Amino acid sequence: MTLFASPADFRAALAELSAPDETAIAAAGARQAELTKPAGSLGRLEDLAIFLAGWQGRARPRLDRARTAIFAGNHGVTVHGVSAFPASVTAQMVANFEAGGAAINALSGAAGLELKVTALDLDTPTADFTTAPAMTDEECLAALNAGAASVTEDLDLLTVGEMGIGNSTAAAALSARSFGGAPADWIGPGTGVDAAGIARKTQAVERALAFHADATRDAFERLRRLGGREIVAIAGAVLRARQLRVPVVLDGFISSAAIAPLAADNPTITVHCIAGHCSAEPGHRRLLGHLGLEPLLQLNMRLGEGSGAAVAVGVIRAALATHNQMATFAEAAVSGKL
Amino acid sequence: MTLFASPADFRAALAELSAPDETAIAAAGARQAELTKPAGSLGRLEDLAIFLAGWQGRARPRLDRARTAIFAGNHGVTVHGVSAFPASVTAQMVANFEAGGAAINALSGAAGLELKVTALDLDTPTADFTTAPAMTDEECLAALNAGAASVTEDLDLLTVGEMGIGNSTAAAALSARSFGGAPADWIGPGTGVDAAGIARKTQAVERALAFHADATRDAFERLRRLGGREIVAIAGAVLRARQLRVPVVLDGFISSAAIAPLAADNPTITVHCIAGHCSAEPGHRRLLGHLGLEPLLQLNMRLGEGSGAAVAVGVIRAALATHNQMATFAEAAVSGKL
Repeated sequence: MTLFASPADFRAALAELSAPDETAIAAAGARQAELTKPAGSLGRLEDLAIFLAGWQGRARPRLDRARTAIFAGNHGVTVHGVSAFPASVTAQMVANFEAGGAAINALSGAAGLELKVTALDLDTPTADFTTAPAMTDEECLAALNAGAASVTEDLDLLTVGEMGIGNSTAAAALSARSFGGAPADWIGPGTGVDAAGIARKTQAVERALAFHADATRDAFERLRRLGGREIVAIAGAVLRARQLRVPVVLDGFISSAAIAPLAADNPTITVHCIAGHCSAEPGHRRLLGHLGLEPLLQLNMRLGEGSGAAVAVGVIRAALATHNQMATFAEAAVSGKL
Repeated sequence: MTLFASPADFRAALAELSAPDETAIAAAGARQAELTKPAGSLGRLEDLAIFLAGWQGRARPRLDRARTAIFAGNHGVTVHGVSAFPASVTAQMVANFEAGGAAINALSGAAGLELKVTALDLDTPTADFTTAPAMTDEECLAALNAGAASVTEDLDLLTVGEMGIGNSTAAAALSARSFGGAPADWIGPGTGVDAAGIARKTQAVERALAFHADATRDAFERLRRLGGREIVAIAGAVLRARQLRVPVVLDGFISSAAIAPLAADNPTITVHCIAGHCSAEPGHRRLLGHLGLEPLLQLNMRLGEGSGAAVAVGVIRAALATHNQMATFAEAAVSGKL
């Protein structure tokens, strides 16, 4: 699928974002007010049901078809020793996804999600972005289109996730480039580097920001210069989901950083997105603040793979169960407020 | 079932609490370290799996049989206008539970919980505790035993919840009596009273604390004087679950307040308990601090009925899915940390 044939196609798509169905939102809100509970007492469960109603365009939203799209890519910046694990682990974990042995396999099963794994040119890491753009225009477009291809209009919900040794360094660079702040504000242990590793990550981001300082500052160029294939694919998937009005659950720091460059150009890109959780990676809370998203869960998770988003889907299923199955005050003959 | 034939039986049970299986804890922890993820990266999901291993006494815990036990009771203190809803709603909501139309029905279904509802003498409210003990010894023991009877040793997990118009006032009184602080520290809107209602709740708790000031300060007397039947039943269920080594998920402010009197006498009563969520009711966060419990979820819920605990069970299922289904580094031939 070549939805984005040129950077201009991507820019045009980002400039013109869809809106939810206000009629469905109003109908879902009216239903919530009639269910047998004090008004507002289900808190965010109520918000979730109404949110899904708006994007699905139905007063009683459903999760019959929900997909987790996981993208994998390799990163040239790993030559600087920015990860606790060797780069070969990216491909090994993709094999683990395919064999069914990873966390996301177990969590997708528990959440009733179909799992779609897309490995993106793992044998060809992106360029080291401390000394060059990570990708060519063509490479960046290919990743955007791979992401877009993972989304189909029959989906009730999409969750996104990633695997890519080194990608928390790319995510930090993208966050800093999109929202400012010192590189150190966006750096954390990732998969578990020590203090020396954090220093190497910080230095890599500092060098990258200096190298690309004079480049064009728009979403496409930020992604192309500082992203990675799996990160760009997430951006493409989230943008495509918006075109198709499919609501999205973001995962952790990396998937949030994937849309940071888009949000810097058009902050409303987050409006069809739920932050599934707040990761233990320290930059994530800060990033969610910039994106205007309040996470559903905070469980000290920091795995990636879409794992936190998948756990959040359990909460969303609970929200829809109450919205769709509860009796109204009239149906149950329960007295209202005094 | 007459497990607690006298207050002395209850006191003896609370004084001698069971411990988890350290062998199962060690085995579950060792397994977590071998799964294909950076150590610790599943955060609280890892903790939950190990916690359940300890109480179930098996390295690979399960949730084949999980129950939500919901108790309902009526409160004499409602004569003071402490609730936004009429007292008749308690029985109406029990009928709604039985007809399948309440939030807890939908949420139990979504979480794979069997629902057991116990209505406790709804036609006989407790005495108004601002001028008398809420219950006689016999009434309090009956409620404790009703709670204990809801727990069976074949359970892998128990969640608890309640329905009782007026019970956030009783919960505030129990919290203040157990852990100190001003009555206003423990008072909130409950089902949705306005400022005048909050003032009435505060005054009722102030009067109750003054009336019972010179009474014996132990768990049984606190429950008997200031509790309600559904609250005391939760205390009995949690204590019985501990005897049977069944792990418990607490719900919101009321169910946490039910064990506050026990925790004031023996703080280790909380060791087999998970705080399913932190309610929007303002006293709950404070109470969880006194109980030494960190909530799994914070979703601005304030319904009761065991609703927050049921949503939390989805997270626990996710934890067990990863613990039991993931491949080890050796099985998946994935490289470890550098």
